[in-house]
Amino acid sequence: MRREPHADRIDGFTRLFGIVGNPVTQVKTPQLMNALFDAGGVNAVCLPFDVPVNVFEPTVAGLQALDNLDGLVVTVPHKVRAMSMVDAMSDTARRVGAINVMRQQPDGTWFGDMFDGTGLVHGLTRLGFAVRGKHVKQLGAGGAGAAVAHALAEAGAASIALSDPQRELPEQLSARLNHFYPRRAAKVDVDPANVAGADLLVNCSPVGMKPGDGMPASFGAFPAALQVVDIIMTPAETPLLKHARQCGCRATNGRPMIEGQLAAFADFFGLDMPASFSCFSDARV
Amino acid sequence: MRREPHADRIDGFTRLFGIVGNPVTQVKTPQLMNALFDAGGVNAVCLPFDVPVNVFEPTVAGLQALDNLDGLVVTVPHKVRAMSMVDAMSDTARRVGAINVMRQQPDGTWFGDMFDGTGLVHGLTRLGFAVRGKHVKQLGAGGAGAAVAHALAEAGAASIALSDPQRELPEQLSARLNHFYPRRAAKVDVDPANVAGADLLVNCSPVGMKPGDGMPASFGAFPAALQVVDIIMTPAETPLLKHARQCGCRATNGRPMIEGQLAAFADFFGLDMPASFSCFSDARV
Repeated sequence: MRREPHADRIDGFTRLFGIVGNPVTQVKTPQLMNALFDAGGVNAVCLPFDVPVNVFEPTVAGLQALDNLDGLVVTVPHKVRAMSMVDAMSDTARRVGAINVMRQQPDGTWFGDMFDGTGLVHGLTRLGFAVRGKHVKQLGAGGAGAAVAHALAEAGAASIALSDPQRELPEQLSARLNHFYPRRAAKVDVDPANVAGADLLVNCSPVGMKPGDGMPASFGAFPAALQVVDIIMTPAETPLLKHARQCGCRATNGRPMIEGQLAAFADFFGLDMPASFSCFSDARV
Repeated sequence: MRREPHADRIDGFTRLFGIVGNPVTQVKTPQLMNALFDAGGVNAVCLPFDVPVNVFEPTVAGLQALDNLDGLVVTVPHKVRAMSMVDAMSDTARRVGAINVMRQQPDGTWFGDMFDGTGLVHGLTRLGFAVRGKHVKQLGAGGAGAAVAHALAEAGAASIALSDPQRELPEQLSARLNHFYPRRAAKVDVDPANVAGADLLVNCSPVGMKPGDGMPASFGAFPAALQVVDIIMTPAETPLLKHARQCGCRATNGRPMIEGQLAAFADFFGLDMPASFSCFSDARV
């Protein structure tokens, strides 16, 4: 019987990476990272690790104790608790209050970081949109929204206007942004449909995922210069993206964010990422 | 970029199996089980898990807590300690005093078994050699030797003569065999080269692995009817096997044992093993 090259690669020397979540059936990180390992000829594999919430800490400690495990990606619902499982973390992670990646350092300690938002900034840069000096309107100030807003502030956005139906979320988030990035004007915008003066509109709310969802706000016509990002991956074109394109805007779904995040993972884990590598054949995601 | 079918199979639904050892660089179980998964179209993958001895119990507990991990194979040096990580085990495992496999039961408890010796009996059966009623001479009464001798006794060997340079090992092992299998005549044989009356000669000693090793005993000519097994895998033909073949004997290395063990694993883990499946292309092991 013939074996496939990838299957042959899993042997006693294979280094392990994993994504820790609960559930994990929806994850795409193993597919993306394994494609990266394939492209780079790296003897490593990324697995889904389904970690129940009631045994999160001891289970992750067990994974961390494996001598051939080099790093973990963390997804819902573990991103906040995962902070307790690292010895140190980046300023970004501490400010966001969550980590989505951890690696073992040469001295055996674990270091955490948060790339949910960084991925979006990387992805926008690849698309030719520089965040520095730009005015941002953002819908959604929950977990994903917090990571995105911090990354936009860190990347030099001039202002960030936050709207969320749960009013306390944008209030808390804008206060934290103004504390950590005093030169970025973060504020609450009670009108979610207001995009006046914005260069970039980012949707971090879940509205648009479910069949029958409309746009996350009752938008009028957008100026054609507005860059629109909807971090939703499925459906590929949400009502918001369709509207933006009809207005002549450049508009993208969550793919550049995921691709940018994969680049950040590769950098974080010390993996070579071939310049030509793209993780977005339609067969893959 | 095109992806290989196997790499595509690792996704959020992939079930995990692993082999727990320290080190793990020498293991072949992932390659064999992944070939089995490929052949059967099973969305599962077997990984090496390098578990340091000083954190064995909490690390294995962490692996066991993963919701998408279905079973573990255990190898050196963890086979004895692994008994403490299961809720119940087979009679064989308890008698041998070690487990090399554990699975999660539908009720969430863990069950252990020991197939190191069973694999050899399965392998011999496939080669057309039935153990029942046969007289066995066995060299080596350590960990592997204990598992093999128990399996041979359980399979109905008429007698088992044990030789080992460490005299207390065959004495303890024969006493245990005679306790658990009182109708099999287990005994110590102080002359390792004595094969008088034996139908089967099994080498479970490490002699023959190292370059320059001779045979594990100063054997004279073998009767051609003697079946000879050397459980050593590398080199493929030990001095003992070469001698046996020169005497016209049927002689085999550890491959039938490993193949028989894989069949036992598949059965234990509830996996279909295609009748035509063979794990022994030379490219693989």
